[in-house]
Amino acid sequence: MRGGFYKFVAVLLTAAFCAVGANAAVKYVFLFIGDGMSVPQRMMTEEFSREVNGGGLYINSMPFQAITTTRAFDSFITDSAASGTAIACGAKTRNGRLGVDADGKKLVSVAEVARDSGKKVGIITSVTLNHATPAAFYAHNDNRGNAYEIALDMLESGFDFFGGGGLDGRNNKDSKSYKGEIYDVAQKEYGYAFAENMGLASLEKGKKAIAVRQKDGAMPYAIDDDSSPTLADYTQKGIELLDNPKGFFMMVEGGKIDWMCHANDAATTLRDVIEFDKAVKVAYEFAKKHPKETLIVVTGDHETGGLTLGFAGTGYQSFISRLAAQTCSFDTFKHRLGELAKNRGEEFSFEDAKPLLTECFGFYFGDDRDNPMRVRSAEKKQLEEAFDRQFKGENRSHSAFAVTALKCFNNKASIGWTSDAHTALPVITSAYGAGAETFSGAIDNTDISKKLKKLVK
Amino acid sequence: MRGGFYKFVAVLLTAAFCAVGANAAVKYVFLFIGDGMSVPQRMMTEEFSREVNGGGLYINSMPFQAITTTRAFDSFITDSAASGTAIACGAKTRNGRLGVDADGKKLVSVAEVARDSGKKVGIITSVTLNHATPAAFYAHNDNRGNAYEIALDMLESGFDFFGGGGLDGRNNKDSKSYKGEIYDVAQKEYGYAFAENMGLASLEKGKKAIAVRQKDGAMPYAIDDDSSPTLADYTQKGIELLDNPKGFFMMVEGGKIDWMCHANDAATTLRDVIEFDKAVKVAYEFAKKHPKETLIVVTGDHETGGLTLGFAGTGYQSFISRLAAQTCSFDTFKHRLGELAKNRGEEFSFEDAKPLLTECFGFYFGDDRDNPMRVRSAEKKQLEEAFDRQFKGENRSHSAFAVTALKCFNNKASIGWTSDAHTALPVITSAYGAGAETFSGAIDNTDISKKLKKLVK
Repeated sequence: MRGGFYKFVAVLLTAAFCAVGANAAVKYVFLFIGDGMSVPQRMMTEEFSREVNGGGLYINSMPFQAITTTRAFDSFITDSAASGTAIACGAKTRNGRLGVDADGKKLVSVAEVARDSGKKVGIITSVTLNHATPAAFYAHNDNRGNAYEIALDMLESGFDFFGGGGLDGRNNKDSKSYKGEIYDVAQKEYGYAFAENMGLASLEKGKKAIAVRQKDGAMPYAIDDDSSPTLADYTQKGIELLDNPKGFFMMVEGGKIDWMCHANDAATTLRDVIEFDKAVKVAYEFAKKHPKETLIVVTGDHETGGLTLGFAGTGYQSFISRLAAQTCSFDTFKHRLGELAKNRGEEFSFEDAKPLLTECFGFYFGDDRDNPMRVRSAEKKQLEEAFDRQFKGENRSHSAFAVTALKCFNNKASIGWTSDAHTALPVITSAYGAGAETFSGAIDNTDISKKLKKLVK
Repeated sequence: MRGGFYKFVAVLLTAAFCAVGANAAVKYVFLFIGDGMSVPQRMMTEEFSREVNGGGLYINSMPFQAITTTRAFDSFITDSAASGTAIACGAKTRNGRLGVDADGKKLVSVAEVARDSGKKVGIITSVTLNHATPAAFYAHNDNRGNAYEIALDMLESGFDFFGGGGLDGRNNKDSKSYKGEIYDVAQKEYGYAFAENMGLASLEKGKKAIAVRQKDGAMPYAIDDDSSPTLADYTQKGIELLDNPKGFFMMVEGGKIDWMCHANDAATTLRDVIEFDKAVKVAYEFAKKHPKETLIVVTGDHETGGLTLGFAGTGYQSFISRLAAQTCSFDTFKHRLGELAKNRGEEFSFEDAKPLLTECFGFYFGDDRDNPMRVRSAEKKQLEEAFDRQFKGENRSHSAFAVTALKCFNNKASIGWTSDAHTALPVITSAYGAGAETFSGAIDNTDISKKLKKLVK
């Protein structure tokens, strides 16, 4: 009886702690966004990791999970600007807009609230630093395409650390706002330290910093590269640079998940989801050292590609682990195919392309019918026809052969896709730590910002 | 300050109530299962309801929602027998098995636990009463195909109410266990009252009852029928028959959501999801009268069809409301097309079929380019070629034209599908009421049974 009473009191106190925690400020807040990462991307990667690597993703085991709708103000299917704005600022806007509402009115992001509350702020992404998702946290622009102006907003934000990909249009002299190459302006006028690639390691605390993989363009795909700093490295460095008595807010985007879903490249997608998960685990290791002061929230901004975990041709059977046979991204495959075609000239034949198909996708052209990667006669015919469309005759397709090879590979792995654009499937928001319990049930992407704004103050 | 203190105490008490509630018995427990209803089916119907009917689904607004994995013991993609067994009995089994584990060992279902705890039990489904999902709650059989034996298990269960569809194989004299036509046996040997179609209304409390739409086969699709008793009517009657001082456990399945996802028929699917939601609302109305004693749990058993809310041809645009143009199920369309073909004989032409396409799918064959349902020349060519494959020449396809018409219609509504089988996408489990808070975060389908077994005792 007494045991029961103490249990009851313990429950009361635990519950009270959680409930009160929900309204109190949290010192360290991490927000991870997987661009284009919805339920199927997470489940595909979970199963691949389980089958191939022997363990699932951390993000799928987080204690709180909320179904999250993503619609834009003017569309059931959102783009990354409208969804980024919803997640950052808590308001619906039209596709293409950043940090302004549907009427063009300037919004305030959770990162700005955190900065104004005295916290340090970090923005990390695997794509360019002025791409839609990171920009939603510091920019206010009617058009996500205004890369130079958005990069200036980035400097104006005064945020403490930007890391990951380079910049789009960093020296656009046609811009009305032009005032110099952005990295120059950042260092000379705004006092940022600047580091490229492995220079990341040498950055020191106490000065605002920008660290990029290279000056232009995004970080490489995880499947193509294992040498340069990873998203996890930038996250680790961010913690080192930002940690201070008032705490920090850090947004980390896995931005290229989306890109390879646009291309319907499942194997490259899941390798980037795994890299993303590793970055979240860096935050989790930190959180374990500051359990009552740290919140980690993980979400996606929308689904991309209409990815499904089943294909008509494979029925109830599932072959996700076959995705392990792919050795490079679709981009790299296309590049290598193009080089090969250029070298062979008009003599280029399907036979010439076979070794590349085997190297990049594990396709088997031999007679052993038990080889799961065997290219069947119907598949071979499709590939040959697509080869001719891309490389023979007058009106050549840009990528018919490459696309057909990828589609054939995906279908062998029981994976389907229905679109090269985004879809309206909800995403999952996962949470761990102080205040995490408010991220449950059915929420909208705008709720993420609303909840976080209360917690970062 | 004092306000703050009282708020604190209120939070303590609320939290304590919830926490303690999680381990106490709940008098009235409803479990709703949408067969083949996963995240895309729910979101598509939500958007359609919002755009066409002016309001979303109740199930999507329930306060607790949990991401729920569905894998079978032997397969990433589950069938309804293995998932039904997981949800009912709390253990993984091989595809095709009912109420027995992967080694063939007999399991105990939550319905049996409820019965043995003195609760009344009801099993309702829109498909046949001995189909996989309902059977998982009372049957124990290595093979879901043993319809007659499973129907005998149904009678042996002693459950108090079975309602909805008829039976498969109810008079199978080839069965080794044959002991008569099942409805006869039910009435003569097991003391069940029996009612067909509108006879449902006359059933009275105090006697075990079986009420079917018709003796054989499933209930009609919601889109095809608005006269006979609905899933909501069976649920309402179930409450009336089962309510008693010890409470009840009721499982209600929307079973034909899955069937039309197998056929990739989005409009029929969503009408059945709406019917399913109406049945859940009946339970919700009851729960509001017994708020502290009632739990409603809603889940799906797996995804079917690889449904996606975006299509390459429609890009970022969404036209879900166009699904309103479909006036009958794909089954009914195929039937009417077959009748038409039979009547016209060898003269049957694509021109003859056009009025039926217009009537069933709203296809417009005129010249007004602004008509959203206009059949474009490329679509017309596809339809004509498919017509010839189905109705002309020697080796005729069974349904090429019907399938192409449906695919064309779905794509116009920005809907994609990748499979005619199930997929491995997780589902959502939603909950309301006493003990509902345990249905949150990331769970497995087996957890549903484990949690419910604690709550029905």
